[in-house]
Amino acid sequence: MNLAADLALPGALSLPAHRTLYRDGNVVSVLDQTALPFEVRRVRIEGLKQMAAAISGMQLRGAPLIGVAAAHGVALAMQADASDAALAAALALLGATRPTAVNLHWALARMAARLQPLSEDERAAAAWQEAEAIAAHEAATSAAIGDHGLAWLRSRLAGREERPLRLMTHCNAGALATVGIGTALAPIYAAQAAGLAVEVWVSETRPRNQGLLTAWELEQAGVPHTLIADNAAGVLLARGEVDAVIVGADRIARNGDCANKVGTYLKALAARDCGVPFVVAAPMSTVDFACPDGTAIPIESRDADELRLLAGLDAAGRPQRLRQSRAAVCNPAFDVTPARLVDAIITEDGVFAPAAIAGLAR
Amino acid sequence: MNLAADLALPGALSLPAHRTLYRDGNVVSVLDQTALPFEVRRVRIEGLKQMAAAISGMQLRGAPLIGVAAAHGVALAMQADASDAALAAALALLGATRPTAVNLHWALARMAARLQPLSEDERAAAAWQEAEAIAAHEAATSAAIGDHGLAWLRSRLAGREERPLRLMTHCNAGALATVGIGTALAPIYAAQAAGLAVEVWVSETRPRNQGLLTAWELEQAGVPHTLIADNAAGVLLARGEVDAVIVGADRIARNGDCANKVGTYLKALAARDCGVPFVVAAPMSTVDFACPDGTAIPIESRDADELRLLAGLDAAGRPQRLRQSRAAVCNPAFDVTPARLVDAIITEDGVFAPAAIAGLAR
Repeated sequence: MNLAADLALPGALSLPAHRTLYRDGNVVSVLDQTALPFEVRRVRIEGLKQMAAAISGMQLRGAPLIGVAAAHGVALAMQADASDAALAAALALLGATRPTAVNLHWALARMAARLQPLSEDERAAAAWQEAEAIAAHEAATSAAIGDHGLAWLRSRLAGREERPLRLMTHCNAGALATVGIGTALAPIYAAQAAGLAVEVWVSETRPRNQGLLTAWELEQAGVPHTLIADNAAGVLLARGEVDAVIVGADRIARNGDCANKVGTYLKALAARDCGVPFVVAAPMSTVDFACPDGTAIPIESRDADELRLLAGLDAAGRPQRLRQSRAAVCNPAFDVTPARLVDAIITEDGVFAPAAIAGLAR
Repeated sequence: MNLAADLALPGALSLPAHRTLYRDGNVVSVLDQTALPFEVRRVRIEGLKQMAAAISGMQLRGAPLIGVAAAHGVALAMQADASDAALAAALALLGATRPTAVNLHWALARMAARLQPLSEDERAAAAWQEAEAIAAHEAATSAAIGDHGLAWLRSRLAGREERPLRLMTHCNAGALATVGIGTALAPIYAAQAAGLAVEVWVSETRPRNQGLLTAWELEQAGVPHTLIADNAAGVLLARGEVDAVIVGADRIARNGDCANKVGTYLKALAARDCGVPFVVAAPMSTVDFACPDGTAIPIESRDADELRLLAGLDAAGRPQRLRQSRAAVCNPAFDVTPARLVDAIITEDGVFAPAAIAGLAR
């Protein structure tokens, strides 16, 4: 099996050890993203509860990936018990792991539609088949987003070919968030493959530091990049050091409002204020046509300890030891960028103005 | 000597151990802000070079405080050698510690004007006297900013008395940034003293986490507060959970553009987008009348290690050990909020529209 070559992941991202998730016989092999960028550690997921914990604990994260992971979680569950009750319980447990990303529910709905009509003894095999089909679909989707995104980059950035394209992203919407080349990072990898010079501003993405995942991933792929504090996005945009901002999404409402990792809205505001294009790259499975606008998107609130845990430098520049603040904390994990601040939404089906999203409902 | 009572610092902030800086005979006693909020540690500053290192290493930080500290650094230098050459060297060394905050240069210019005409044997005593006068001036300035800021809060927030005022700040512009009750936090302490219920949203302020200083300080003063990731400011503003944003400044240009801790511009954009007032509280010593606009303000770039040092939680929610990323880093310490996004500038002389600042030149 040579999955990596099939997916055309760039550079060292093609190593099997770096794949986010794949079926390995009767278990699922997962790259533990809580250990990155410091350690490449794989985890064997052997059952439903372990998969649910891996999603809620963010060993697996990224909207497309958690959809694929949830589908594999259903397959693990069906392998152990394929009764109607077990199927309903698996769908409920996995559906409750993360509230904001709608791809999770898209994938679970697809699993339910495939499995509910079947008899118990057909379900385990069909569940693996459907989970792998969902993974293949998401990998192909990433590639298509890369192609459409590259065309968009070329069209908007024509005339600036004499120096590298400077793109800013937020959080991680790359290979690590998918089973392919990513969403927001897909056009960047496509640009690199096409011979365009690209540089990426990578935001730290507090409190979970997913920017470090992006930096790790871009390093594996050989794409030049620079880490910044989330706070620094505005001054870089104001200085003219960014050609476009490109991010992923966890849920897109029918009106084009986009929920994504908390802090995205601030980048969109700064991009607009500085006249820099702001684009969202996401699979169509991220669009929630039942959701009228961003105010209806549930925003996950995560544990205070994500924010309380601190390290710093002392006056002599030496690392202080790890310490825990006692402060009361509010920790929303996502925010909503209004459609009016989004210049384009790049999907596997093409590039759309946010207002055109509603017309894509099937 | 009972400095604390003179300054009317609220709650446990009035403890001598919590004072940011005071002269203690022939040395200067300083609260080491790199140890906060985890440890209350005082440092004896005995000479010029030690003071310069304390400012550049951020044991002392906050625009008004580093002005006071630099003045005390000149006094320490004059105590050792009061020659013209030593005075010039002290002014140069201290002036080069931090580039953005103009209060530093204001205080050094005041020291130079006082000391240069004197004979060598008059200088040490005069330097201590002038440094203490600058400290007293800044403490009185903080109190006046509190009074004017409270009046502004009352006028803008009338009719909302049935619930606490919810104010958002950034970085630390409180008692810890001054030798008094602060700049941005001064109106909050004034409101508390006047019996108004106040709650404060405190931004972490990566990469140096000065929000933890604000949380510590508000805890000492008994003001309810909640820590948030810098990224979360937008979603809280959009949800209507903030009545006003109030921040300090490191340098205000003649046209009203305000340089402050990096990330301030993003908060100002979100406040404007959400219809929430955004105000800057700063002493007149922060206004640089020689600076036409924000583009002329030098922005300090700090060490990559401030951003590379990381801690996090593992999948089981346990603290990971302290680790160092290898990523390339860009670390600007300040940004500029354009005057058009600033609703008011609160100084010791009153509350002004940004456009009125130019008219205040003496």
